[in-house]
Amino acid sequence: MALVAVSNKRVILKRYLTACEIGQLGDEMEVVTAEAVPLSVPAGSSAMLMKNLYISCDLYLRNRMIRHEVPTYISDFVPGEVVTSHGVMKVISSGHLDFKAGDLVSGMTGWEEYTLINNPESLFKINYPEFPLSNYTGVLGMHGLTAYVGFFEMSKPKKGEYVFVSSACGAIGQIIGQLAKIKGCYVVNLLKTKFGFDDAFNYKKEPDLEAALKRLAATHLRCFPEGMDIDFENVGGAMLDTVLPNMRLGGRITMCGMISQYHLERPEGVRNLMYIITKQLRMEGFVIFDSITVYRQFEEEMAGY
Amino acid sequence: MALVAVSNKRVILKRYLTACEIGQLGDEMEVVTAEAVPLSVPAGSSAMLMKNLYISCDLYLRNRMIRHEVPTYISDFVPGEVVTSHGVMKVISSGHLDFKAGDLVSGMTGWEEYTLINNPESLFKINYPEFPLSNYTGVLGMHGLTAYVGFFEMSKPKKGEYVFVSSACGAIGQIIGQLAKIKGCYVVNLLKTKFGFDDAFNYKKEPDLEAALKRLAATHLRCFPEGMDIDFENVGGAMLDTVLPNMRLGGRITMCGMISQYHLERPEGVRNLMYIITKQLRMEGFVIFDSITVYRQFEEEMAGY
Repeated sequence: MALVAVSNKRVILKRYLTACEIGQLGDEMEVVTAEAVPLSVPAGSSAMLMKNLYISCDLYLRNRMIRHEVPTYISDFVPGEVVTSHGVMKVISSGHLDFKAGDLVSGMTGWEEYTLINNPESLFKINYPEFPLSNYTGVLGMHGLTAYVGFFEMSKPKKGEYVFVSSACGAIGQIIGQLAKIKGCYVVNLLKTKFGFDDAFNYKKEPDLEAALKRLAATHLRCFPEGMDIDFENVGGAMLDTVLPNMRLGGRITMCGMISQYHLERPEGVRNLMYIITKQLRMEGFVIFDSITVYRQFEEEMAGY
Repeated sequence: MALVAVSNKRVILKRYLTACEIGQLGDEMEVVTAEAVPLSVPAGSSAMLMKNLYISCDLYLRNRMIRHEVPTYISDFVPGEVVTSHGVMKVISSGHLDFKAGDLVSGMTGWEEYTLINNPESLFKINYPEFPLSNYTGVLGMHGLTAYVGFFEMSKPKKGEYVFVSSACGAIGQIIGQLAKIKGCYVVNLLKTKFGFDDAFNYKKEPDLEAALKRLAATHLRCFPEGMDIDFENVGGAMLDTVLPNMRLGGRITMCGMISQYHLERPEGVRNLMYIITKQLRMEGFVIFDSITVYRQFEEEMAGY
């Protein structure tokens, strides 16, 4: 007789954190065993039961551990409920016409063994299973899509332009760097040098983060006295302040994240905004969840690269 | 026998000021009588001798009284030399084919009785002399052009959108307000209310400018809980910080000036830039001197209004 239900281990958030606390994560999550999951979706439902294969652990998730008074671009986690992020899954049982058992898909899912997905429209079938599946949590997943949209659509790069990538974790920044090379741009990527950004950005150990960031960025920017045409901004705060005077006339600053600010109760002030006027810069923010429509084009193009 | 030369009174800057000093202007200018001016241009020259009729005294000129280490969008004044700004002039003698004696023109000129202009290409013949000529230092001059370009070209307004105008001096802000009405937008213009901005923005008397600005903007923004689609930013600093959380998804912040910052040695920090990401805002700076090509279209359209 076939198995009809399985146990389901999951990761839950125990409590909301303060902004300060997300700088030093500790015991705020817990693995629990949830109630057993039926291995088929109810008749007539369009839901899908998924086996989770890979889960993406992203810096922006820290921000979801805080309870926000004002809604942000993505929902806060709920204590006691399963943590969610982008992942790779296999369909176990499908009530949706577009998918069948055995299909490999990517999309938002839970940090658990099995997830019942009620809105399968949010999922994408994996078209290139010949690549390592974990790529779909990276270069072919949310990070890749963010880099792709943030660079090609938002930053509008031209061949020969100078691109500054200050990304902290590198998941997105590394991809931006490669896309910029493909486009024929010059890339200043803090990650790729001996002054690696991860070292400098250890805010637990660095007594003066602002000074460290400025020193780091200044060191790199000095090598490019003509300035930057594009800044892909993932850090914010003092880093952004250091980049602004180094932008070229008509430059574009694509705002993707502010990783240096999430753990602060009160964000740092950025003082050099006057350069937006004098250098006629465009600073534009984007949220990748609104660019899902370009996913197919992205997957196709990135697979080609 | 015709007069061949006349005396020429002019206003000069005596010395460079510090950023702090431009908040409290005093005796930094002086009226001097310069050497006599020949009333005709040298044979073979394409220069023009102009009689100045109206001169525009603008807030941005304060910024030109400071010696900038890094070049800004416009040259610093030079101590001992005549102060320059936009003005209305009559041609006395012309070496340029496009102009003849008696023509009325507008453009950059000196704060003096007569000015020899060596680049007449920078001047515009006045096509609507039936309007008060002083309009060509205001609604039909640099202020009007700034408002026109900043609103229609940069902010891309749509009918029914909400527009926030925080402009301090009102020269540009008042025009923006009227253009916004013409376009069918709702306008929040601090100047037009009993909490008039000019009162609040007296930094000589206001002990806590930041608090005053925030209070003022917050009072107005509360009336529009849906938020603003467009912010025409002329103030910067705390005002911009107060506006950011009140922007609507996809809003545009057109950066024209930062009048609250010019007198500060160190600009205030703007802390709410995260809203650029979460609300997917576009913040773009512009300098009107680069939009001179649209002047004719602007003059025609504004004369119609």
